[in-house]
Amino acid sequence: MSGHLYILGMGPGDPELVTRKAERVLRQILIYAHFAKKGEMGHARKIANDMLSASHQELRFEYPITTEIPHQSDEYKQTISLFYDQSAATIEQYLQNGQDVALLCEGDPLLYGSAMYILERLQSNYETQIVPGITAMSGCWSNVQLPIVKYEQTLTILPATLPLEALIEKLRSCNAVVIMKMGRNLSKVKQALQETGLLDKAIYVERGTQMEEKKMPLTQYTESKAPYFSLILIAGS
Amino acid sequence: MSGHLYILGMGPGDPELVTRKAERVLRQILIYAHFAKKGEMGHARKIANDMLSASHQELRFEYPITTEIPHQSDEYKQTISLFYDQSAATIEQYLQNGQDVALLCEGDPLLYGSAMYILERLQSNYETQIVPGITAMSGCWSNVQLPIVKYEQTLTILPATLPLEALIEKLRSCNAVVIMKMGRNLSKVKQALQETGLLDKAIYVERGTQMEEKKMPLTQYTESKAPYFSLILIAGS
Repeated sequence: MSGHLYILGMGPGDPELVTRKAERVLRQILIYAHFAKKGEMGHARKIANDMLSASHQELRFEYPITTEIPHQSDEYKQTISLFYDQSAATIEQYLQNGQDVALLCEGDPLLYGSAMYILERLQSNYETQIVPGITAMSGCWSNVQLPIVKYEQTLTILPATLPLEALIEKLRSCNAVVIMKMGRNLSKVKQALQETGLLDKAIYVERGTQMEEKKMPLTQYTESKAPYFSLILIAGS
Repeated sequence: MSGHLYILGMGPGDPELVTRKAERVLRQILIYAHFAKKGEMGHARKIANDMLSASHQELRFEYPITTEIPHQSDEYKQTISLFYDQSAATIEQYLQNGQDVALLCEGDPLLYGSAMYILERLQSNYETQIVPGITAMSGCWSNVQLPIVKYEQTLTILPATLPLEALIEKLRSCNAVVIMKMGRNLSKVKQALQETGLLDKAIYVERGTQMEEKKMPLTQYTESKAPYFSLILIAGS
């Protein structure tokens, strides 16, 4: 009997925004895996802190250093693909041994989450279950108390990594908008919002639901970069 | 000292998909409010069942019968606006009396949720807090194990209540798509998907995460109507 893989959405940051299901599964399954940047604890791991016991065994997958390599390059694609292959192979050893593994993910696993690359590699041979998580955007619009869409409004989620022209084109046909993955893309995004007349409606939220949360109209945020865990909200109208 | 209003996202249906925070708040606050259709228990109320005690007091707000009235008509707008005025006024009596109230909402309160109309009416005079919930769409794509967006893909959420032409126009410029609020709009949505070449990619999920969950390729769903709690998923590509 092979073990099962559970992929657990751990939400945006506040440990209380973990679901009862993710908590129960994590307390039951004593091998947990997570992704982390080099030298950092890992966001999902940090959220899980109060649900882990001394009996838990950690599998830490550290992203290869690739910030200097353009994400479209073959070198990046090969490096990251090999990294997911190796991470999946490590998890597979436990599953083959009949042990269950819980893979922790920040936010919701299947909305831009790295966990989907592990799922792709293992779901044909093992039992897999996915526990959804509170998305960063839900955490942010709840804390800002911003009704994001009502009635027949539409909501579009855009990654800030899109080229400027693509952002402008999409923003022109959008109603409510969430822009994710800000980081170094902030000034490009500001320019796109300016050109589409949306800048004054944009709300900036940094590290939503975490202790260090900041929230303000985007026009008041004057830094040239933003942390990766920041996003922009524009309510429907 | 006035009471506080807590708006709690109760998730898509599985009571285990409630967050630890919503559970804690609901167990602490002994007056809870919720919306329900005439003669039905109310979806959020059903999800909350195991978190309620004999000490809890219920405020049940029953939607006025309006399915026969077109939602764009003045009569509908006046009826529903009066209903929210009255519901907010009922909650306000408790808040003025110094008692806290928890308003339960299915899914996430600020994503097409009725709770936003109560928030609008009370947030300028009372302390309000919103606890985000797992959205129906996250619950559905997790159970179907469908990675909805990756890399630079965009996600658009469309209400099925849009006119056919608007649906077609929006689907033409979309990548990943979620179509919500199906109900009587199913055949219109199928036509829009057919005309935009997306029908074969569409996954139908009914009552996602609930006991009665159904999921299948949309082409295999042959009924002419769908329950309100059903949606369509198209993964990014």
